Amino acid sequence: MSDGPRPRIDVSVSKEYALIAAMRALATHPAARGLADDCAVLDFGGEALVLTHDMMTEGVHWLPGQDMADVAWKLVATNLSDLAAKGAEPIGVLLGFTLGEGDARFVDGLGDALRAFGVPLLGGDTVSANGPRSLGLTALGRATHRPPPSRSGARPGDTLWLTGPIGGAMLGFEALRDRTGADSLAFRRPTPCLTKGRTLAPLATAMMDVSDGLLIDAARMADASDVTFAIATTSVPFPSDLPVARRDDAMRWGDDYELLFTLPSAIAPPCPAHCIGSALPRAAAPVLVDGAVPQGKLGYSHD
Amino acid sequence: MSDGPRPRIDVSVSKEYALIAAMRALATHPAARGLADDCAVLDFGGEALVLTHDMMTEGVHWLPGQDMADVAWKLVATNLSDLAAKGAEPIGVLLGFTLGEGDARFVDGLGDALRAFGVPLLGGDTVSANGPRSLGLTALGRATHRPPPSRSGARPGDTLWLTGPIGGAMLGFEALRDRTGADSLAFRRPTPCLTKGRTLAPLATAMMDVSDGLLIDAARMADASDVTFAIATTSVPFPSDLPVARRDDAMRWGDDYELLFTLPSAIAPPCPAHCIGSALPRAAAPVLVDGAVPQGKLGYSHD
Repeated sequence: MSDGPRPRIDVSVSKEYALIAAMRALATHPAARGLADDCAVLDFGGEALVLTHDMMTEGVHWLPGQDMADVAWKLVATNLSDLAAKGAEPIGVLLGFTLGEGDARFVDGLGDALRAFGVPLLGGDTVSANGPRSLGLTALGRATHRPPPSRSGARPGDTLWLTGPIGGAMLGFEALRDRTGADSLAFRRPTPCLTKGRTLAPLATAMMDVSDGLLIDAARMADASDVTFAIATTSVPFPSDLPVARRDDAMRWGDDYELLFTLPSAIAPPCPAHCIGSALPRAAAPVLVDGAVPQGKLGYSHD
Repeated sequence: MSDGPRPRIDVSVSKEYALIAAMRALATHPAARGLADDCAVLDFGGEALVLTHDMMTEGVHWLPGQDMADVAWKLVATNLSDLAAKGAEPIGVLLGFTLGEGDARFVDGLGDALRAFGVPLLGGDTVSANGPRSLGLTALGRATHRPPPSRSGARPGDTLWLTGPIGGAMLGFEALRDRTGADSLAFRRPTPCLTKGRTLAPLATAMMDVSDGLLIDAARMADASDVTFAIATTSVPFPSDLPVARRDDAMRWGDDYELLFTLPSAIAPPCPAHCIGSALPRAAAPVLVDGAVPQGKLGYSHD
């Protein structure tokens, strides 16, 4: 993984892991999906409500001094990407906002994102705080296919697919960090795959968005589904300007928000996508890359 | 207002006001209620979904070093209080959590609150951050009466009511801050008036919870309804241990989470409540106390 802003936080790994385990023990309602999916899925009024809440923190999810319009866009886009992974149509967002520098730019970017994705701002809260800022967004969606795909439905023999290239956000982040002047749009303004998600939801046996890195997210899907994914690097789509030597990095970097999904082997995807591998019966490792167990950190990880 | 932890933040008033105005300009969907109500109310699948997101910040909403179990309880209770004010039945919460000291206690208190109020944890996010912590909670509810009462329905001639005494949280906060050993439960573990809210929702012409202070919240309801409320101090319920000299303070302190509501003059409330005044045609001031315009700060205010 590249030297991104995210892993440099001095909270002990075991502490966060224990906390999340304790939270999971509280989240026994089936709608919570064990806190192990991209979203909660709650039956309401004869439909399925799809819910997610993601946070971003200064110095962790964005660079200090970054344009707050881009931060606002990304906060909306990343939450809507979770809805996309469940094939849900966004119906609204609630914002948890901490005051600070660049607030007017934040509102500009928020408006850009809400208009671009056609989703209304329904409510939220604004607080004052000293120190690094935290922002939270709750996104609500309506399931267009029920039940929405989970991470746990992949079966041996399924094919594994990715909707688009990965690595563009990594290059964009590096351009921004190093002020090279190269294009950083893929890092600053990702686009959630909402239309593809809705098209795929009725067919995919499992689906999630790639937010933390292809390898770590594939491993999570493999663990949830009790399979092993075999991925062929030559089948993975990368941006044309990504050096071949950086392909391994790109597979361990997140932020591109493409969808990762599985299909029964006889079924072709109804939208443009790339077959990057297949599901095998569960072996010792959740993921094999070109036949070998990948070494080192697979991506950004909370645990 | 007592010397609570909340107003000591060095963000300029005009900056926050401008930001909230800019957010309101984005929130044009009718479900957002102009960001001027306790909750958003969204039609979904033949029912009405009631939504709120409130945050708490260390040093602002809780004292540094306070038991995080109480902070968790309060985070849940304050959000459910917003649902109570709309007569909604809670159906779930999503948590935005920042790691820090006392996390195990936080989970204990979160579990206490979820069990006490019978509401499931559906999802959320956990991030690491340095500096003062921010916590966010999104609460979802099902409207038991449609449309849920807003703040804007009070009419001249209506009577003004409060479900219970105010000032207990102020005394509890002071006991905690000054380590007097006196009971601080009313500040630490407030109870949202969920049952009363549901009982009142079909009858109340306007309803909200008193979170920031009776006078300021009554003024907000008066402004939203375009009336003036005349309040009689002798009719306002206070805790028995509140010194008479502190009554004015208590009316400007929040955190008790009683419900403030109006009824047509011929209707008696279907649950225990105290008539504290009435609505008059709009005059210059939103609130009169014992016939006079109250001077000074009316309560905790964002703007």
